[in-house]
Amino acid sequence: MDYSLLAKKYNTPLYVYDFDYIQAQYNKIKKEFQARKSLVCYALKANSNLSLLKFMAELGAGFDCVSIGEVKRALLAGAKNYKIIYSGVGKSDEEIKEALNLDILMINLESDEEMKRVENIAKELGKKARISIRVNPNVDPKTHPYISTGLSKNKFGVSLNKARLMYLYAHKSEFLEPVGVHFHIGSQLTDLTPVIEAARIVSELLRELRALDIDIKFFDIGGGVGIKYENEEEPDLYSYAQGILAALGGQDATIVCEPGRFLVGNAGVFLTKVLYEKINDTKDGSHKRFVIVDGAMNDLIRPSLYEAFHEIKALKDGQKELCDVVGPICESGDFLGKDISLPKLENGDILVVKSAGAYGFSMSSNYNSRNRAAEVALQNGTDRLIRKRESFDDLIKNEKEFI
Amino acid sequence: MDYSLLAKKYNTPLYVYDFDYIQAQYNKIKKEFQARKSLVCYALKANSNLSLLKFMAELGAGFDCVSIGEVKRALLAGAKNYKIIYSGVGKSDEEIKEALNLDILMINLESDEEMKRVENIAKELGKKARISIRVNPNVDPKTHPYISTGLSKNKFGVSLNKARLMYLYAHKSEFLEPVGVHFHIGSQLTDLTPVIEAARIVSELLRELRALDIDIKFFDIGGGVGIKYENEEEPDLYSYAQGILAALGGQDATIVCEPGRFLVGNAGVFLTKVLYEKINDTKDGSHKRFVIVDGAMNDLIRPSLYEAFHEIKALKDGQKELCDVVGPICESGDFLGKDISLPKLENGDILVVKSAGAYGFSMSSNYNSRNRAAEVALQNGTDRLIRKRESFDDLIKNEKEFI
Repeated sequence: MDYSLLAKKYNTPLYVYDFDYIQAQYNKIKKEFQARKSLVCYALKANSNLSLLKFMAELGAGFDCVSIGEVKRALLAGAKNYKIIYSGVGKSDEEIKEALNLDILMINLESDEEMKRVENIAKELGKKARISIRVNPNVDPKTHPYISTGLSKNKFGVSLNKARLMYLYAHKSEFLEPVGVHFHIGSQLTDLTPVIEAARIVSELLRELRALDIDIKFFDIGGGVGIKYENEEEPDLYSYAQGILAALGGQDATIVCEPGRFLVGNAGVFLTKVLYEKINDTKDGSHKRFVIVDGAMNDLIRPSLYEAFHEIKALKDGQKELCDVVGPICESGDFLGKDISLPKLENGDILVVKSAGAYGFSMSSNYNSRNRAAEVALQNGTDRLIRKRESFDDLIKNEKEFI
Repeated sequence: MDYSLLAKKYNTPLYVYDFDYIQAQYNKIKKEFQARKSLVCYALKANSNLSLLKFMAELGAGFDCVSIGEVKRALLAGAKNYKIIYSGVGKSDEEIKEALNLDILMINLESDEEMKRVENIAKELGKKARISIRVNPNVDPKTHPYISTGLSKNKFGVSLNKARLMYLYAHKSEFLEPVGVHFHIGSQLTDLTPVIEAARIVSELLRELRALDIDIKFFDIGGGVGIKYENEEEPDLYSYAQGILAALGGQDATIVCEPGRFLVGNAGVFLTKVLYEKINDTKDGSHKRFVIVDGAMNDLIRPSLYEAFHEIKALKDGQKELCDVVGPICESGDFLGKDISLPKLENGDILVVKSAGAYGFSMSSNYNSRNRAAEVALQNGTDRLIRKRESFDDLIKNEKEFI
């Protein structure tokens, strides 16, 4: 793909997603679980563009949603309601009500208190809420603390003990129908051994529940499958799937997995234009090189927020030297990369920030009154716009009537 | 102010700004410089709500903008173009062109390369661009590294040596008119001694330039005046102003200052509703208490991004115990406060997150497909909406035509 043509056609900063790559990733994960009933639920918090969701839905994917906004996005994009899971640690009453009315596959419960609220709302609506319970197996996923979720010091899920009591309660309730068991211990895991360890723990719970005639159909192993940003090893999907199957020990259940980053992370790039290079003198007589670009932390906050690494490539050759690639925002925290090796660049040159398909646009903001970027899809050798660049009018739309 | 009434009237999560407090802060800073010509330019990246800008403009404030979007916001809110400064390390050609056409007070240059681009564009437009140059005095402001900007390892400004050469060049150019000198060494400074130190350094440059018949009218000391979030000392504005005046050593210049956080930070609160409390068992037999609220890192990212502290208060009494106040977003990084002392809370209780007027809404996003909060102004004992809560339709507006 000629990125400079795309940059010219759609302008920069720009997100570009390769739908063919997404399809290949989807097929990879689907294939590993082909021996069993399985449902791949795309975790759309990674990238919730409607056209991308439509593409996923057409592949047959289900959706893992964490807000009613995400549920609505999935439905609007053509998702089947019986393939939608609604997870998340803080659902409001209105959200729960809407989810029940939409008759989605199941609501993932994160606490006893939430279970009681779902029960009450189901009762009001005269419905029986299909639920799963997120178990926190207290397994250390060894990832960035912000995206580690499977330790008891994290806000997510409930302990095994509490889960047992909740299942017993739900089983007896007229308005709750426990159909799934769920865990998710963290994101961007390149060693999936901790997930398999967690699966073993939760599989035992599944066995116990079935012995009590609680008919759990879905074994939801969450997401977290990591991708290669820099020097990470690609996780071994075969061992992952085999490990999960072994952990299940022959129990018959539909395996639900919730990949987000794995499907879209390396399908996306972020294109940004060089404004100019700048060399600062430093006190010790050396120099510090900055490449100032038109993309910024409002577009891609991962480097700033998680100290995440993104490979950055120029579209031209030349002798490379280290530089920081920084945006126009008035903070030193506004950088896309530090100590990146790039050739001499000038105004108008395009840089390709890789692995930007996940948690890129979905976390973007209007900080510094910057319009959010456009999004483009690549498919079968053609490109098309899937989100218009924001305008100044978009920024002030909800404010201007009040001045 | 009865926050529970506001929460009921406008729903949560909600930003509330006290315009009377903003006015008092504005008057405080204006008064300290009253012996001299001065221009207080509000740094609107802190909070760019149009009604708030209109209020500032009516107070007589100028505006420090860091993007053409911010310039447009200021003008739409009623700012005079001759009170607008356009700063920032990465201006695009289109932005520079627009700023020149709008005939604003001055463009703040951050590099030699940028100066040449401004000169070229001014030439094309047949205009003379009023400029100032941002000097990086290499003074350590001793604040969070992300908001420290006055060290030569930061991307901002140019060294004194380079500034001299740039002023000489600009002075000779037919299309550039150097009218100001600028520095800004960092944000949220509670000890302003480093700013005074920087002022002394830059004041020497001013003297040199005037000796060369370069008629610099504006001495722009930037912003950075800190506020009290937790145990910080309120900065001593009198000593600050006196220090700046002393640094100028009798030179006649209009003092420009660029407060952002100082004007609006403690004028704002963020109201959020408790969804439920959750107690997690931890492995060692102790418990971890979470208060799950409907506000999240997409609304207020400062705790997550800068590890910033915000005081959080409940509207009810009771025996207090430590807890983490966390939002519904699926990340452990989604917290508003850790180890906060709060009474027992239940669904519907309101929490007040203080000091949320600056870098709150302006950094907010739609992460997890969450609608951004509404904003409300308080003035003379009345409240009014100044930004509507976002809707699902707002979220998908630029995408839906492509599915």
